[in-house]
This record gives sequence, C-alpha cells and structure tokens, in this order.
Amino acid sequence: MNTRGAPMPYDLVIHNGTIVTANDSFEIIPNGLICAKAGKITRIEPLTDNQSPPAATEIIDAAGGLVMPGLVNSHTHLPMTLFRGLADDLPLDIWLNQYIFPAESAHINPERVRWGSLLACAEMLLSGTTTCCDGYFYENMVTEAIQTSGMRAVLAQGVIDFPAPGVPDPKDNLKIPDAFIASWQNRTSLISPSVFCHSAYTCSAETLKKAKSLCDQNGLLFQIHVAETQNECRQIQNEHQCTPIQYLDRLEILDENTLLIHCVWLTDEDIAIIAARKAGISHNPESNAKLASGIAPLPKILGSGIPVGLGTDGCASNNNLDLFHEMDMAAKLHKAATFDPTTMAARTVVEMATIGGARAIGLGTRIGSLEVGKQADVIIIDTAKSHLTPIYHPESHIVYAAKSSDVRDVVVDGHVRVRNRNVLSMDVEEIMARVREIAADIRR
Amino acid sequence: MNTRGAPMPYDLVIHNGTIVTANDSFEIIPNGLICAKAGKITRIEPLTDNQSPPAATEIIDAAGGLVMPGLVNSHTHLPMTLFRGLADDLPLDIWLNQYIFPAESAHINPERVRWGSLLACAEMLLSGTTTCCDGYFYENMVTEAIQTSGMRAVLAQGVIDFPAPGVPDPKDNLKIPDAFIASWQNRTSLISPSVFCHSAYTCSAETLKKAKSLCDQNGLLFQIHVAETQNECRQIQNEHQCTPIQYLDRLEILDENTLLIHCVWLTDEDIAIIAARKAGISHNPESNAKLASGIAPLPKILGSGIPVGLGTDGCASNNNLDLFHEMDMAAKLHKAATFDPTTMAARTVVEMATIGGARAIGLGTRIGSLEVGKQADVIIIDTAKSHLTPIYHPESHIVYAAKSSDVRDVVVDGHVRVRNRNVLSMDVEEIMARVREIAADIRR
Repeated sequence: MNTRGAPMPYDLVIHNGTIVTANDSFEIIPNGLICAKAGKITRIEPLTDNQSPPAATEIIDAAGGLVMPGLVNSHTHLPMTLFRGLADDLPLDIWLNQYIFPAESAHINPERVRWGSLLACAEMLLSGTTTCCDGYFYENMVTEAIQTSGMRAVLAQGVIDFPAPGVPDPKDNLKIPDAFIASWQNRTSLISPSVFCHSAYTCSAETLKKAKSLCDQNGLLFQIHVAETQNECRQIQNEHQCTPIQYLDRLEILDENTLLIHCVWLTDEDIAIIAARKAGISHNPESNAKLASGIAPLPKILGSGIPVGLGTDGCASNNNLDLFHEMDMAAKLHKAATFDPTTMAARTVVEMATIGGARAIGLGTRIGSLEVGKQADVIIIDTAKSHLTPIYHPESHIVYAAKSSDVRDVVVDGHVRVRNRNVLSMDVEEIMARVREIAADIRR
Repeated sequence: MNTRGAPMPYDLVIHNGTIVTANDSFEIIPNGLICAKAGKITRIEPLTDNQSPPAATEIIDAAGGLVMPGLVNSHTHLPMTLFRGLADDLPLDIWLNQYIFPAESAHINPERVRWGSLLACAEMLLSGTTTCCDGYFYENMVTEAIQTSGMRAVLAQGVIDFPAPGVPDPKDNLKIPDAFIASWQNRTSLISPSVFCHSAYTCSAETLKKAKSLCDQNGLLFQIHVAETQNECRQIQNEHQCTPIQYLDRLEILDENTLLIHCVWLTDEDIAIIAARKAGISHNPESNAKLASGIAPLPKILGSGIPVGLGTDGCASNNNLDLFHEMDMAAKLHKAATFDPTTMAARTVVEMATIGGARAIGLGTRIGSLEVGKQADVIIIDTAKSHLTPIYHPESHIVYAAKSSDVRDVVVDGHVRVRNRNVLSMDVEEIMARVREIAADIRR
C-alpha cells in the first residue's frame, strides 16, 4: 500500500538493465523495465533516459546489468550433491558399480536427501537457475527442499526394476510415484509432479508402460534416460532389434509429455521419430563429456524443431549444477565436433537454457522468456566486472564470458530469492555444515 | 621487524588450508603451512592440530580453503580484451578479415594496448593466474601494464611479414623485438622478454630464422602459432611438401626454448619430432573449440613427455582469460573426443595449468609448484561455497567444481596482489571505465 492507502500498481519492478527477453524474436531491450503483479509479468518495455520506474512494493535497480529469464535446468538428481567429486575419471562401469550405486545404497536416506537437495537449491539459486526438472528416490524430501527454497520445479519419483533407496521391493516401484503424485498434484503452482523411469534397460516394458500411463492419467511429464551410451544402444539392439528410441516408440511412450534425457546416440531416423511425436530432449553436454559417453548430434536435433533444454545431470557426474558453465560447453563442444564455428550460436544456446528448457519440460507457456503474462522468474547479472568488460553483445557475454557467480539477484514467481548473492529463503551456512557431516560419514 | 627489533623469520606465512603442491608426487598437505622470505618459499609442511603458525610480517589464514600454485596461462594476447565478444559464431576467415584485423588496424594504439592489458591483468589476477605468456604488438605497453599489476610474465613483441599495429613497414619487424629485448632483458625478475612469430604462413623462412636467432642470442623463449587449423596444414603442405612441424624442424626452430601454440593438427611423427627436440606446447582447448579449429591429440602429446601448458588465447576468441574454465574444458573435451573417461584426469589437468605451463614457457625451475626454493606464487581458493560442498578430493574440485570467482587471495613473488577478491595493485574501476570508453569508440 502506498501512503494514500491505494494498492501499489506492481509488486515488483526491475529497471536500469538491458533485458534479454528470450522471446520469439529474441528481443533485447536496453534500459528496460519489467513490472510484476501477483507473480506474473504485467509490463515490459524500454524506459526513456530520464523516465523514472513506476511505483511498486519493491523496486530493484539492475545497475546497468543484464536482466534475463531465470535459467531452466532440464535434468538433475538433486540429492547427488552429497557425492560431488566422490569419484571421477573412472570407467563408467567402475564409477557406477564400485562407487555410485554402493554409495546410494549405503548412505541415502530421507533426511540426507533433504540436506543434499537443500544444498542443490542453494547452488542453483546462486547460479541463476529458477526451475529444475528432477528425478530421484525419496522425491517427497526433494520436494520439501524445493518448497523451502522457493524455486519452481518438475519433480519425479524415480522408477527402476531393482531395489532402490526407499523402494526395497521393486514390485512397489509404481505405488510410490502414485502416492507422490496424489500428494503434490495441484498443491502449489511452483511444483509439478512427474514420473522418472531410469531407462529402457533397467525398467521392463510393463513398468515403462504403466509409468507412462500414470503420467497420462494425470497430465504429467514422463522422463527417461535414453541413448546415453553406445553400450545401451547395443544392449537394446540385442534384446529388441531396434534403437532405444524405436523401442520407446513401439511402446507408445513418445509424445509431447515425454522428456528424453541425454540422447547422445541418435540416428537420423530416431531424430525424425522424436520430432514427429513432439517429445522434448534434455541435452547434458558436460555429463556426457565427463563420462565419455559421447557428443550428441545437437545441431541436427535442433534443426528438426525438437524442443531442447540444457541439463547438468547430478553432481556425481558433472560436478556442479551450473548452467552458465553448461551453456559455454554446449556452444564450444559442438563447434569443435562439427568443425563449424557458426553452429550453436550464442542466441541458440541462451534459448536452450531458458525457453527451450521450459518447452522441453512442459512449462513453455508459463516460463522461459520475459513476456507479459508469463511468471516473473527473472535473474540479474552484474556486469561491472573485469571479465565482462567491455560488452558488445549481451547474448555473447551470457554464453562465453559470464559466470554463475555474476548472478546478483534471483526472482522466482515474483519473489526475490537471492539478493546481492545472499539466498533469502534458506540458511546456506547450516546446510553446508550438515552436508559436510554427511560427507564425513560417506568418506568413512 | 618484531617488537624486539629482530627481523621477522618470514615475510609471509599462509596457514590453515589444504595445500595442493603440484610437486612431482602431487603431494597434498592438509592443514599445511607455507612460509616465504624475499619472494621465495622457504618452508612448506603440515601443522599439527594445535600448532600455531610462526611469526611473519604478514600471516594469511586460508580458512580451510585450498592453497595451490598460481596458475600459468601459456598463451595470451592481452590487449584483445578490448575486442571481447565483438564477433562470435562466425566462419574463421570472416571473423579474422572482416572483424578482428580491421578492428586491430583501426583501433589499436599504444595507449589502448595499455588499458586493454591492465584490464587483462585484473581479470587474470582475480581468476588466480599469476603468470602469463603473451604476444602482441606495442608489447612495451603490455609490459608496463604487467609491471603495474605485479604479475609475472613472459612477454613477446609480435612479428609478422605484413604491416601491423606499430610496425607499418614489415622490414622493421625484427628491429622492434630487438629493442624490446634490450629494454627489458634482466630489468626485473618478474618479466622475461621473448619473441612471438605469428605463424609459418605469415612469416617467411628468413623472418622465422632471424627471430629464432634473436632469441637464441639472448637465451629467450621463441613462440609461434602452429598447426592450428587444417587449412594451415594444407597451405604448408602445398608450399613446402611437409607438415608445419616438419617445416619448423627443417628451419631448426624447434628446441627446448621454443613454445608451439595450438598444435591441433599433429601427426604421430610431428609429436615424436616435438618430443625429440624438447619443445613445449601451449594447449588452448576453448579457443580451438570456439573457432572450430578442432580437438588436439592431447593424450598422445602428454604421453610423449612433451611439456604442455594451458592457454586461453586472446579474448577475441574465448572470450575470457579464465584458466579454471579452461581446466574443466580440457578435462571434459578429451574424454568426449576419445570415449575414455580416464584420460585427462584431474591431477593431469591441474599439472598442465601449473607446473606444465611453467615448464612449457621456460620457468619450470622457478614457479609452477609449491616447493622450497621456488618463488612464492600462491593462490587461495575459498571452499566455503555451496557449489564446493562437500569436498572429497581437492584436485577434483579444482578442475570440475571451482570457479575463478572462488579465488580469494593471490600472491605473486611473495607479494599479496589480491586480498579477499580486491586487486591491491590497480584501480580496477578506473580501468573498466577507460576500456568502456575505448569500446564505445570501437562500436562506432
């Protein structure tokens, strides 16, 4: 309320920055103004030089920095922050079977999932990510952490046909997602429940079809790792005489509510199938590189019109949740692999990290760009740094020069969650202390 | 002097950190102590839990962070910070001929070289780089900037058989390096002059031999871009019926005082020649990727025992001077390219960014590792951050999780140059303001 008792026209106003909208024409607005009311963007336009911003409950001066949509991380396993750097530079089978699976089996419990997820939320908010798409076990605890943080997320209980944390008997592996969905569906606009099947080689056809059906009944996103490694493709070929994508298509799993994660090893026919079914893809270049899985045919995938988001994967295989780093890698890796310096231009990469990711996880109409009617998920990048001086093209700086640590403020759904690099919604010191204790136990 | 008037035993003491020495056995010292006197490390050892650090003029508490050698950037063109992000995502010939060469021709002058270099020094110090190996025109101005910053550097006047900034007549292209060497040789222990020939396709055999001879007379490093692109290799093959490395070898250019920059396109025979001649290599994975030059056969190169350092290249083609970013890229890119997750392990990458780079640029006996007798070039990484929690293996965090913005303090030659992320030796605000003015003119 202002002094006369009339309601403020806006809850939040951001001004004095260059707005990178990520709208369809990738409009960039120097000296831009964004106004939000009840969580939504209600006004976005340039200000003239001497024009003051309108009245609002809160006014943020972007101080000449860049203002852009909050980043969308389309693939995470949040609690795996607990295993950050536990085992690197190992062959995939040794890494998984001798380190990650035993660590999960011995050390994952609901309380630890909560602390690991809270740490992940702190890292994501501080690196400009406002939305993530997660899959893990004890996902109800991940969801509580996301709620604490004030972030937006698509959150999926994991499904696998083996005993897993919290699911000792795989026969129950669809009961838990069912209960998870019942618990979180329509509870808050910030959280969308989902189901995450680990893969076509760890879930039976029956499990896959039942999980997809559970999603369809509730209008939810179905997620699956697919075509990540050559080994996986060989295994599916041996068992089903087709590619992993053809196999999922045969099971009628692929549609616009399906997110296909990794997609490193796709044939041209696979790409055509995915495009025809309107499924989305989460591209995870750093994880795929670090685990030596390979380099996805990303320029071809994007050329086919498939919605593609960027994902970091879990912290056991990256080892961070930093989408700025992921953008730089996506831009450079594919140039190197294709010998084409014009591929994966900065604008394309920024779109993947924002509107592309939003579309891939089913939130394209609500977030991913700064436009009137969308939710106010906004980040401000402080450009008054030596490594960001001078600036010729904002999108170039976002991809090739800015670091996640340049994110100054973060707004989710119109609420300020990071101000001047301080997370307002959580006690980050306490979270780090608790995770250090858990790690000390894991180390033993 | 302490209160009794006796001289302090040490000028500088750093304690309460985990020291990553980068010595031959890659020793890691928890709760480590480093003492320095007159610019050199005189003591390095673990402290017991209750032991206090010894008296010193200055004592730095690393607060549980990581303490490691200052990073060595083995290839830069510092003044090109002025062109950071001016032109990206373009074919190499258009990028060079329509953007970079015209920009250099129109906008480079001594004063601008100085401001661009000062900006580069600020960025390097703030990202943990204590030594760089540079080549550009008006290098005397680069050198003045380095002196202002208090950094260590190998600095080379550029040589090319075309008109260049400050060298309108290529007939003078060896007079200027000659004068540059005379001016800076033995003037300060922090600065080593050098000569930088642009390439075998822009310098005649005569120019190359004369430049190398100038280095040999003075015991200095000779630098050259070589085997960067397939086009270059084709051109040399057409003109000289051999590879670029074979051509340089034929000219007797290759020896232990030669730094070969890029080396993307090497045959196995080329690698054997370089190893036999004991030349060093600067590996620039981000620049090579962004310009789509290709992916160097780095695991093979390292396997041959060649000293290899990491380099960022100039800011027109990267677009930063951030060796933390470069380490992460070097680790991941080669795993992806070779399908081998064990290649370029974290230790190997940390070595490239420190002792490997020091050896490649001829400073391996003086810097690059934390050992008694070496110069005290030390950085402290603040690990009390969400994205660096928890820690299992320090070298993993340095490569895969830490960002340049996590560098808290920087010491060069025993002098603190960055304290708590503030550059003590320069007015960074003024430098940024001047570079913004220059960029405004370039933009016009």
